[in-house]
Amino acid sequence: MSLIVQKFGGSSVKDARRIRNVAGIIAETYLAGNDVLVVLSAQGDTTDDLIAKAAEINDHPSKREMDMLLSTGEQISIALCAMALESMGLSCVSLAGWQVGVRTSGVHSDARIKKIETERIQAELDQHRIVLVAGFQGVDRIGDVTTLGRGGSDTSAVALAAAFNADLCQIYTDVDGVFTTDPRIVSNARKLDEITYDEMLELASQGAQVLHNRSVELAKKFHVNLEVLSSLNRKPGTKVKEVTKVEKTNIAGVAKDTSIARIALIGLQHNPGVAFQVFDLLSKSGINVDVILQSIGRQDTKDITFTVHKKDMEEAEQILNDHREALKFDHIEMDDKMGKVSIVGAGLMSNCGVAAKMFEALYEAGINIQMINTSEIRVSVLLDEEDVNKAVKAIHAKFFDEI
Amino acid sequence: MSLIVQKFGGSSVKDARRIRNVAGIIAETYLAGNDVLVVLSAQGDTTDDLIAKAAEINDHPSKREMDMLLSTGEQISIALCAMALESMGLSCVSLAGWQVGVRTSGVHSDARIKKIETERIQAELDQHRIVLVAGFQGVDRIGDVTTLGRGGSDTSAVALAAAFNADLCQIYTDVDGVFTTDPRIVSNARKLDEITYDEMLELASQGAQVLHNRSVELAKKFHVNLEVLSSLNRKPGTKVKEVTKVEKTNIAGVAKDTSIARIALIGLQHNPGVAFQVFDLLSKSGINVDVILQSIGRQDTKDITFTVHKKDMEEAEQILNDHREALKFDHIEMDDKMGKVSIVGAGLMSNCGVAAKMFEALYEAGINIQMINTSEIRVSVLLDEEDVNKAVKAIHAKFFDEI
Repeated sequence: MSLIVQKFGGSSVKDARRIRNVAGIIAETYLAGNDVLVVLSAQGDTTDDLIAKAAEINDHPSKREMDMLLSTGEQISIALCAMALESMGLSCVSLAGWQVGVRTSGVHSDARIKKIETERIQAELDQHRIVLVAGFQGVDRIGDVTTLGRGGSDTSAVALAAAFNADLCQIYTDVDGVFTTDPRIVSNARKLDEITYDEMLELASQGAQVLHNRSVELAKKFHVNLEVLSSLNRKPGTKVKEVTKVEKTNIAGVAKDTSIARIALIGLQHNPGVAFQVFDLLSKSGINVDVILQSIGRQDTKDITFTVHKKDMEEAEQILNDHREALKFDHIEMDDKMGKVSIVGAGLMSNCGVAAKMFEALYEAGINIQMINTSEIRVSVLLDEEDVNKAVKAIHAKFFDEI
Repeated sequence: MSLIVQKFGGSSVKDARRIRNVAGIIAETYLAGNDVLVVLSAQGDTTDDLIAKAAEINDHPSKREMDMLLSTGEQISIALCAMALESMGLSCVSLAGWQVGVRTSGVHSDARIKKIETERIQAELDQHRIVLVAGFQGVDRIGDVTTLGRGGSDTSAVALAAAFNADLCQIYTDVDGVFTTDPRIVSNARKLDEITYDEMLELASQGAQVLHNRSVELAKKFHVNLEVLSSLNRKPGTKVKEVTKVEKTNIAGVAKDTSIARIALIGLQHNPGVAFQVFDLLSKSGINVDVILQSIGRQDTKDITFTVHKKDMEEAEQILNDHREALKFDHIEMDDKMGKVSIVGAGLMSNCGVAAKMFEALYEAGINIQMINTSEIRVSVLLDEEDVNKAVKAIHAKFFDEI
């Protein structure tokens, strides 16, 4: 007998019809002789409705009370889904985060799972019950409800799979799996059968939103076999694992990100440690810096160029200007019309032909590259935002149509 | 410093405007230097909406999962109300039933409070926080969510007031207090300033729905000072206590109940213990019997007449017919067009003039009395349903207009 964790997102449980569909998938898995541990998100619009209710009352409610409010959404989902399974005559039980004992840090709205108690769930599994757990939520040391922030329900599912040493953790969503690129841009984008954790991590952080990085990192750490698949059909999805079976002759996919702003500090004096100072200041304000490039400027000065999320650009400018005297730069240049396109593939950088092929595709398409950034398994280029979709198409065609 | 428990019902928190109003009442009490413990019901339509969601999925969901589902309603209320208090700059914290430690029996949808843990709430009160508790809910021995059934939030409030030895427990509703009779029938019905627990109990069980009996019984047992008042104005309400201050020269009120059916077993053989058998059978099926009357019938037989709730009439008939041989009766007569009108007042029965005055009012109004039933502080008459409102008006006028 296998233990399978199945996670269903908000669109998969958005109404009674979808909940019955989800119950059907769970029942099929259970009746095939598996133990099933289900993790659910809040129904489609529930979270937005609750946020709207809060906004009517308080522009800046405390995160503790927001967690108290929002955590009801997943509780509603698990109770309703349990009722659907009951109506099929199946034995099941729903459990909120605090009932399971999903212990987290006390950082409301962005808590980290510290430990999952196994007693209650194990007792229910021993009774051959399907166990439905509210995703996205936990309870902190003093017994307050916490939520896990973005990608929280995926993280709940992977953490449960790790805690119970599950044979498989299925993440059901409304797409068929992980694609070689965004099918909305490239109509012949292909579904991948398999992908490594590292490739998935690079794809996710480069803008492919099918799985959140946190859950992939956790899956990698605890060797959880993941599968991303659709709740709307019964097709196999994409398996995410340590090593993929076949030796790869190609990249895994092409990702894009259009939420990028570029900031350049021009004319920095020679000042040892200035790069550290700049990025330390920004990180203390919670601003993530992505690509960094340092170059020699005119007259013995240097320039530092880096990218941040668009939403952080103005705050970053403010912080740097506030410290202009200490940092000793001449002026700031900014551009919030940037985009980034990346190719991801295990072992990519040990095959220099791959990067060249990417640049060739861009050259043929007449697209200008502004910055380049690489990791072991990724090559990213920064472009004008308006060139992003054209670049994705050109690169995808080069790698997937010419084989 | 006093500790005041304030309970607000579903209509008092039905939208953002009403929640702000409730927060205003709480703030006033808190800023006057009191500790405040607030108990909230689910918002107006929330419970109905959740029940509708469940009904779409399963006609007969388990009570455990219904409790899981419905308990989210009160949690939403307390979080939103906390946000309203936060926006006023007040320190507060919301707590669900399981966080407080409202320990109940495991009877889902109709649990009884066994114990209330005081640690968490006391710690919050010691920090001078306003504490908002989800009414209607608790947690059983194995950590499952339970709900308390009808009148549950009132019961939560009174139980908390008892556990913390509160100076006052205010039940806020959408009427100004307890009235001498239903103001929709008698336009000059008066609000009572004070009423005893026993009078309130009789009024409540005789159809005055402002407070549920369970909460009044609990208040009486633990000597909790209750006040029933409106959340829509700042008028004093009705105080419910052990003994009312002024010596009563009048009844407390006139109550009516039109959900009554009369059942008569005609021609019972002399059969010792037959009354016990009849009512034992009915009680085992959960059917409550109210007024009972036994009379000598023709030819050495006897008749037993009693009343039940209209909804139970057919089931009672079925049960009695199923045991016709053992019970040895001739036939059953039934009438579901009955009503009951009662007067309630402490010490009423020690003043025989009071009952006479009631009968006089009915006689003057030309209303026929079918049965009479009395307790220490109540006189009830059974009438045709169509006479009920006329009877209430006549009796109210006799006792309240002629003084």
